[in-house]
Amino acid sequence: MHPTHGGDIYNNTVSHDFSVNINPLGCPMEVKSAIAAAIQRLGEYPDPEQKAVRNALASWLGIRPEKLICAAGASQIFTALMSLLRPSCVLMTAPCFGGYKYAAHGIEGCVIKRHGLLEEEGFKLTERILDDITDEVDVCFLCNPNNPTGVITEDELLFKILKRCRETGTVLIMDECFIELSGSGNSLLSCIDEYDMLYVVRAYTKLLAIPGVRFGYVLSCKKNISDLADHLPEWALSVFAEAAGTAGTELLKEGEYLNISLKLIQQEREYLVNELTAIGIKVFPSDGNFLLLKCDKDLYSALLKRRILIRDCSDFNGLAKVFYRIAVKEHEENRILVNALKEVL
Amino acid sequence: MHPTHGGDIYNNTVSHDFSVNINPLGCPMEVKSAIAAAIQRLGEYPDPEQKAVRNALASWLGIRPEKLICAAGASQIFTALMSLLRPSCVLMTAPCFGGYKYAAHGIEGCVIKRHGLLEEEGFKLTERILDDITDEVDVCFLCNPNNPTGVITEDELLFKILKRCRETGTVLIMDECFIELSGSGNSLLSCIDEYDMLYVVRAYTKLLAIPGVRFGYVLSCKKNISDLADHLPEWALSVFAEAAGTAGTELLKEGEYLNISLKLIQQEREYLVNELTAIGIKVFPSDGNFLLLKCDKDLYSALLKRRILIRDCSDFNGLAKVFYRIAVKEHEENRILVNALKEVL
Repeated sequence: MHPTHGGDIYNNTVSHDFSVNINPLGCPMEVKSAIAAAIQRLGEYPDPEQKAVRNALASWLGIRPEKLICAAGASQIFTALMSLLRPSCVLMTAPCFGGYKYAAHGIEGCVIKRHGLLEEEGFKLTERILDDITDEVDVCFLCNPNNPTGVITEDELLFKILKRCRETGTVLIMDECFIELSGSGNSLLSCIDEYDMLYVVRAYTKLLAIPGVRFGYVLSCKKNISDLADHLPEWALSVFAEAAGTAGTELLKEGEYLNISLKLIQQEREYLVNELTAIGIKVFPSDGNFLLLKCDKDLYSALLKRRILIRDCSDFNGLAKVFYRIAVKEHEENRILVNALKEVL
Repeated sequence: MHPTHGGDIYNNTVSHDFSVNINPLGCPMEVKSAIAAAIQRLGEYPDPEQKAVRNALASWLGIRPEKLICAAGASQIFTALMSLLRPSCVLMTAPCFGGYKYAAHGIEGCVIKRHGLLEEEGFKLTERILDDITDEVDVCFLCNPNNPTGVITEDELLFKILKRCRETGTVLIMDECFIELSGSGNSLLSCIDEYDMLYVVRAYTKLLAIPGVRFGYVLSCKKNISDLADHLPEWALSVFAEAAGTAGTELLKEGEYLNISLKLIQQEREYLVNELTAIGIKVFPSDGNFLLLKCDKDLYSALLKRRILIRDCSDFNGLAKVFYRIAVKEHEENRILVNALKEVL
């Protein structure tokens, strides 16, 4: 049985994990040190008001701290949003991150509608989505850039979607967990005041390469955030998540870590696209830190024999067994992957 | 404004925190080491199946791993249970832990009924509760031993409550977060098979003195646990919580840490009861690692001036401004508290 998420190192022996699409630079030393220092605080309750980390985020993003709340990863935010909104009908794209379906699954009787992205359009979101946002859709999940494709949605279309959602009374949950690593400025962050049915979800899981810590946050109007808080545990963050969130935000504010990350991702993404295309693998255009591949051969099993784990995308609604997702990593590991694929093909 | 929970060190300068009722021994070295080692796993997703920690708990408690699930503290479990059960009416005692009300608060239209515990009965749960468990009560929250009183409920009454809940179709959420530290054997753990509307909630927050980590677990029949999983995030534990849960369970299984904890708590509880009674403070009988006090004077403010934080219980439904809760700590700190109280009174 193949895993339903990347990072399934618990059932496999792995030397190189390309299945998890996190920042190839790894966790910055400043953040690691802050987490290590938090061991002194095992015996303290985390701050239920999350003052330090909310203030840091508010200062970085230029919004008021009341308009955001932090939680143990984006997945906890999705679960809490479902508990708050109790949708009868949820719209998501095919393919998209499996976590939206997982969160909606907990709501009894909730129908999941799919908007199919087309391979011939490079799985790009187009104006076709507007027709699928109907009155009956209570919640629409979108991801920008989308996972597993890495494709960014254009600004103009995003605004059309927002307007359409307002017309139909649809809540828009915009997952921006990969937006910083794509270098795109197409965030909806600045729209949370004008559109009170918009939630923007982000996390440090990918950006700071800390899936083990569980840290995410959500931005919306003040009332929405206050309502959502009732559906989150009183202490949603551990002292480690608090420390990572605060130190990480201060580092991101400086800008250099993100600049170096973006340069590396761009350069290595280009390398992988060129090398993989040359050996006959179809690589879809991506703006993100990961690539969607298409290949008739069972790359997953062949690579796993070489202790290289990639993401088999056959469990993504809208994709078949011929699709795979790989993370863009540092050059040495990318070279190992390319060489292994050369052997396989 | 006084805090709504213990441990509010974020708004106070504190040298001795008696407001948080955690194990006075502090986090055991084995658990601290396991948490420190987990820093090497920042870049890994925690195991969504929680295999290692569920197996460790199952082995310690002698139940099957399918009958338990772990989460980021008991508070996350309460929130998830409310999202799953969507009660219209919830019963809880007055006084009791404020977290039940917090969790129920998120459910629109949920009515909170209170069963008043009586000061003249030492705030003990009695058969009077049976009359308040009616058909309209969807969920009953109980805590054994109760917080903030530390009083254990007798076995016989517990079984009557279970039977009554079955008659009225009421789900019983039994919070046993303090049960190990009370040394009581009155757990309902062995009843989860016979009573399928029973959830037993526990955590390592108090037992291993790690509120900063967020680790709790819930036991129920297999179907209930499987349904509850849909209302928890996919990665409910951080790698730190995983490590603390696994190492902590193995340590508890050995028994010595708990034995030493119980001896210390018993001895120091007796010391505090004797000393405080001698200076005219009313101390209620407690089986737990904390004591409920009654005193006309504003002990909270007087002690805070001396940088000692205790729990002002005036925000507990059923208690007034004259009640305070203190944790039983190690002798040196208890002595400091006693001396400070002697000065104050």
